[in-house]
Amino acid sequence: MPRLVMKFGGTSVANVERIKNVAQHVKREVEAGYDVAVVVSAMSGKTNELVAWCKEAALAVSGDPVYDQAEYDTVVASGEQVTSGLLALLLNKMGIPARSWQGWQIPLYGDDAHGSARITGIDGAGILKGFAERKEVAVVAGFQGVHKETGRIVTLGRGGSDTSAVAIAAGLKADRCDIYTDVDGVYTTDPRIVAKAQRLDRVSFEEMLELASAGAKVLQVRSVEVAMVHNVRTFVRSSFDDPNNPKPGTLICGEEEIVESQVVTGIAYSKDEAQITLRNVPDKPGVAAAVFAPLADANVVVDMIVQNVSPDGKTTDITFTVPSADYARAMAVLAKEKETIGYPSIEGAQDVAKISAIGVGMRSHAGVAAKAFKALADRGINIRAITTSEIKFSVLIDQAYTELAVRTLHSLYGLDAA
Amino acid sequence: MPRLVMKFGGTSVANVERIKNVAQHVKREVEAGYDVAVVVSAMSGKTNELVAWCKEAALAVSGDPVYDQAEYDTVVASGEQVTSGLLALLLNKMGIPARSWQGWQIPLYGDDAHGSARITGIDGAGILKGFAERKEVAVVAGFQGVHKETGRIVTLGRGGSDTSAVAIAAGLKADRCDIYTDVDGVYTTDPRIVAKAQRLDRVSFEEMLELASAGAKVLQVRSVEVAMVHNVRTFVRSSFDDPNNPKPGTLICGEEEIVESQVVTGIAYSKDEAQITLRNVPDKPGVAAAVFAPLADANVVVDMIVQNVSPDGKTTDITFTVPSADYARAMAVLAKEKETIGYPSIEGAQDVAKISAIGVGMRSHAGVAAKAFKALADRGINIRAITTSEIKFSVLIDQAYTELAVRTLHSLYGLDAA
Repeated sequence: MPRLVMKFGGTSVANVERIKNVAQHVKREVEAGYDVAVVVSAMSGKTNELVAWCKEAALAVSGDPVYDQAEYDTVVASGEQVTSGLLALLLNKMGIPARSWQGWQIPLYGDDAHGSARITGIDGAGILKGFAERKEVAVVAGFQGVHKETGRIVTLGRGGSDTSAVAIAAGLKADRCDIYTDVDGVYTTDPRIVAKAQRLDRVSFEEMLELASAGAKVLQVRSVEVAMVHNVRTFVRSSFDDPNNPKPGTLICGEEEIVESQVVTGIAYSKDEAQITLRNVPDKPGVAAAVFAPLADANVVVDMIVQNVSPDGKTTDITFTVPSADYARAMAVLAKEKETIGYPSIEGAQDVAKISAIGVGMRSHAGVAAKAFKALADRGINIRAITTSEIKFSVLIDQAYTELAVRTLHSLYGLDAA
Repeated sequence: MPRLVMKFGGTSVANVERIKNVAQHVKREVEAGYDVAVVVSAMSGKTNELVAWCKEAALAVSGDPVYDQAEYDTVVASGEQVTSGLLALLLNKMGIPARSWQGWQIPLYGDDAHGSARITGIDGAGILKGFAERKEVAVVAGFQGVHKETGRIVTLGRGGSDTSAVAIAAGLKADRCDIYTDVDGVYTTDPRIVAKAQRLDRVSFEEMLELASAGAKVLQVRSVEVAMVHNVRTFVRSSFDDPNNPKPGTLICGEEEIVESQVVTGIAYSKDEAQITLRNVPDKPGVAAAVFAPLADANVVVDMIVQNVSPDGKTTDITFTVPSADYARAMAVLAKEKETIGYPSIEGAQDVAKISAIGVGMRSHAGVAAKAFKALADRGINIRAITTSEIKFSVLIDQAYTELAVRTLHSLYGLDAA
């Protein structure tokens, strides 16, 4: 029997009526002959309610909202437990044999980084036995696992259910993993900004990884990483389609399955970054470490980093971006390290945006980025910083120009629909 | 170190503020030197919400609200998971080492009667290790366990958390089990009916068992059974007491701990029963089985049964009571069996009440019940049926006389406070 993993997020299981709709999607695939494992998130809003209780409990003791992450995991994992039970109950009632599986029942093992655990292993034997002996649908509570030694519940952090789904698809050697979302696939850019954005039929793992990192919110970065490493063919499709006549969505797959690569596949943007520039930093060995080590210690994730060759060999400017949410913390850390780093002045900007163009075709085409710089300049858009990778380039600009820049690049690389 | 099990029900953990109050009770006992396991129910209202979703899911498929009990267990057990995590989080935050334990983590094993499983075993090793190595409070999710072979979550049914607590006290060989409720102990009768009702300092297991069976709602029958079999000294006390200065409550213990037994310890009543009388049933072997076997098959629990010696040796009347909720079902079952049983007429009454007097002293005192029959007759209360056991007698009367009868017997046996 071919095997299929399906995944439904919080809005797809928001209430019993929506869960019934999910059951119809599962029924279709069972009737098509698949052995199905379906991964579900908590009903939308439930996780927030549970997190709020944890914060309230911590604040009831002291003014500091920090709490025991292992107990947090115990509390929030209950959300997925409820959804998995309800969907299995519904499927059984519809005459489709089904059984719910919590992370500890599978078991899906995670490390002890409670709140954002990494998956360390999956034992698919129980689920496969259900497939073989009873043609039983496995309804898996996403987002959660268990620590092998302590026996405690761990959760996988933001986007954890996507990661659960792809990892289970890898563990079960599934033929396919379908991620159902509230959009019907991956687009060349955000359709709310560019009306002529097009749904992509296929996109490579590498491109999807860069798109997700660059701000496209359709899939979490971690799940794409797992899909890439284990070569899991993953579809992004809509849970709002008619269950009896759904659209195929976008296939995320290896490059070998994509016949003709585009130079640029998509344009992504992120407004969630802030820029920090240190002026006239002494240009000597170890200065970069002096800047970025204390930020890493404070758990600030630095994204773009630009350091030019020093004109006089004595001092240089260092520019980098951090998540907006960490901006104040980063500035405080750097203020404390002013003497050690030895910078005379610091500048910050929060009204910035990062625009990225992604495409595996960039590898074999020269001048892809240069075209963009010219087009942006022609529209009076000032570029603050530039970074490039093998299949992506990103520019940091004033946030007010975000939409104009996205539309400009989308047209420039021929992505507009006819 | 002495060991203590504490149990808090739904109203005691209704919100974060109440859970903090529970943490204060736990803190007091930890500081008094106890190793503590605390068993918690779901926040009040949560279980009902979860049960309602299960019903809604079943009804979304067909008009019949029957559902898969194993999935029901998975859904409803999440309620206790949340409370256990929140209480452990709060205790840790207060500087008291604590860890939550779900049924499967302990493990507390149950049989496969999903929805009303019986406890088949408890392995206390993990909890005891936490006591010994880290002086760690064990916060146990009540009401739930795991099936040893299937690895599935089971729940223990109504009053399951009381039963969890007493069973864990037995498993850990605890010195004591404190059941915190919204009343401050066991009373000689319902104080809402008799203002002069008195809180009992001590009551024997056997008496408590009969009181609970006879309608006193302070503890579930199953938990008293477990306490009696394993000789767990159990206190019923109030969670609304000042955590720093609580009252002792009522001790439920073996008879050997009660120096002087009362003839009658308490008066209980139940309005949740209905009476059924079959007239002129043929008085021949097998007729009782013909009546009660079909009722048992339909899961109707029969309580009082009265069958008099036949006056003519040919026919007799059989009277019995069933839970009010099952009355219509019982009547339907009996209508179907009319030919087989061979009764010419049937009578039913729903406006009845059962009044019971309980006391271990009855064993050694004659005429205890006879006194009651006279006192009730003196007040014009007609007795429909009577049953007696070693330490209890019950009378079935018109429901309108409930309060009068309870007050009459409470005075009669010298239970009124001075």
